[in-house]
Amino acid sequence: MTEKIAVLGAGSWGTVLANLLVENGKTVALWTHDPKQVPEINEQHRNQHYLPEFALHDDLKATSDLKAAINGAAVILFVVPTNAIRSVAEQVGPLLEGTQPIIAHAAKGLELNSKLRVSQVLQAVLPAGQYRGPVVISGPSHAEDVSTKDITTLTVAATDVAAAQVVQRLFMNDYFRLYTNTDVLGVELGAALKNVIAIGAGALHGLGYGDNTKAALMTRGLAEITRLGTHMGANPMTFIGLSGVGDLIVTCTSVHSRNWRAGNALGQGQELADVLANMGMVVEGVSTAKVVHELAREQDCDMPISEAIYQVLYQGAPIKTVITDLMAREGKPEFDFGLTLQTAPKQV
Amino acid sequence: MTEKIAVLGAGSWGTVLANLLVENGKTVALWTHDPKQVPEINEQHRNQHYLPEFALHDDLKATSDLKAAINGAAVILFVVPTNAIRSVAEQVGPLLEGTQPIIAHAAKGLELNSKLRVSQVLQAVLPAGQYRGPVVISGPSHAEDVSTKDITTLTVAATDVAAAQVVQRLFMNDYFRLYTNTDVLGVELGAALKNVIAIGAGALHGLGYGDNTKAALMTRGLAEITRLGTHMGANPMTFIGLSGVGDLIVTCTSVHSRNWRAGNALGQGQELADVLANMGMVVEGVSTAKVVHELAREQDCDMPISEAIYQVLYQGAPIKTVITDLMAREGKPEFDFGLTLQTAPKQV
Repeated sequence: MTEKIAVLGAGSWGTVLANLLVENGKTVALWTHDPKQVPEINEQHRNQHYLPEFALHDDLKATSDLKAAINGAAVILFVVPTNAIRSVAEQVGPLLEGTQPIIAHAAKGLELNSKLRVSQVLQAVLPAGQYRGPVVISGPSHAEDVSTKDITTLTVAATDVAAAQVVQRLFMNDYFRLYTNTDVLGVELGAALKNVIAIGAGALHGLGYGDNTKAALMTRGLAEITRLGTHMGANPMTFIGLSGVGDLIVTCTSVHSRNWRAGNALGQGQELADVLANMGMVVEGVSTAKVVHELAREQDCDMPISEAIYQVLYQGAPIKTVITDLMAREGKPEFDFGLTLQTAPKQV
Repeated sequence: MTEKIAVLGAGSWGTVLANLLVENGKTVALWTHDPKQVPEINEQHRNQHYLPEFALHDDLKATSDLKAAINGAAVILFVVPTNAIRSVAEQVGPLLEGTQPIIAHAAKGLELNSKLRVSQVLQAVLPAGQYRGPVVISGPSHAEDVSTKDITTLTVAATDVAAAQVVQRLFMNDYFRLYTNTDVLGVELGAALKNVIAIGAGALHGLGYGDNTKAALMTRGLAEITRLGTHMGANPMTFIGLSGVGDLIVTCTSVHSRNWRAGNALGQGQELADVLANMGMVVEGVSTAKVVHELAREQDCDMPISEAIYQVLYQGAPIKTVITDLMAREGKPEFDFGLTLQTAPKQV
């Protein structure tokens, strides 16, 4: 009998992760809030809305019964949108009594209003002492590319390293490779903040800018993510790793990125409401932009790209003017990161 | 009478830079070693081989007379391929007597055999005391995108900051923005080393890998560039700036990159000799890969991606096997950069 893993959320990422675990020989219950998905996944072996091209493993089983999904699970992995984490966790919490599963998540955002990271929401809601973790899975990993077995590298972060290693071993295979990290704060911030920059990269594309301008935006985006993250206490190194610059690159350059596609559509002149309606999936960067706007003010930290995107999304600022001003504005010195790097003694 | 600038080299980058200076109202002499280019540029206002789509400014004048080009020039900018820098500098040297121009370059490579950076070659050849600089221009800047006035951000590096500022002011305009830096070593290494990683990114594409794998390669590529650079004494911060990660991103993701295109063709199964012949332009990463192989050994520094590309280019290793092994190999811990980052006191 293999360990059972409950994967909560049957969007594209949850479905791909659950399918990969089945491939790895694990027993998986994929929970979905949408009962219509259950026969589609269990009988047709398809996730038509999120991954129409992808043939799911015959043994991947979905359920809309949360209690059945998590019953006996050694690991419970949350892969619902950031702003649904709290309500799902509130349902999971009472079911944990007498169990000690590892709680993990693979969401990339910050909760509206509370401004909490996903692991903080989980810790606020779930009963202390009745789980291990939370463990965070992050990194440059579009679901579509994992579904075609593209070699994918991820960060698995937790203060409880042993719990992170359990998750690492469950997922690890020839094309899916996880590296442990203890900087939960930096990993979650990098994952969330890069979605706002990706909206900006998409907007540049939609407005007709070329590769030089996009590279400049990504470089400055990495700088402002690192600046806010280190102000909040993260390890600056995290932002030049897989869950930082790696995820930033893939999100800002891949057509699979919803955040990039939303920015691109805005840049082409579409209205925000239409963009979001047409997407049919959650665009995490939209709500994250609001949280980042508030965090940057609280931390007294300059976040010009994120602020420009906030102004477009929430203040009705004209995107063409905002983006043109942003890219043309007199820059500060290149290395105003609020941090320094030092060479460590060479390892022997 | 405006300052005269001599731009040496009428490839795509030299031509675009010279044209931009003319747009900025400067007097420019564009030197080419190929007499056929002179009437093409001066009469047809075209550079047919390198930038067939680009209509040059009517006032941009080319010459194949090196002495005439640099006569009276306040700034001499070398934009020839790295391995032609020495021979051109040897011709320029004797002509500097009694003058004091600023010497600048915008080449991105390392010299074969000597393993010198371009500024070091210039310093070795040019008569000391008869010039200021060298000043290095680098950053994410495909010539094609500059020719369409894409907003482009660059680093202009020199130990002589005043000389860098002169160059900065000559080029600065609405869409071309330069930031000064004093880390000449880091800027030149970042510019050169990223071309080798770009060959790898192109190879991944040619072999059919997707965006997740490319992001992983770029993240690990940035790590190994930073590792070698800091071992050699560069400022680690430089590698997360425009001339580091910025240039890496644009070179690894833009179809305008010759290095990426060469890697892509190799990945698709073409022979190296054919790839280089079809390109019709210098692919700097090919010779740089050889120099990096030697430098990494000298510095006892692990450069797995660069080494893999070297094995493909110079040792006849099969690209599919080499790249597959590279991406699937058991990774070291994510943050084995040989350096640490520390948060500096917050600026007020």
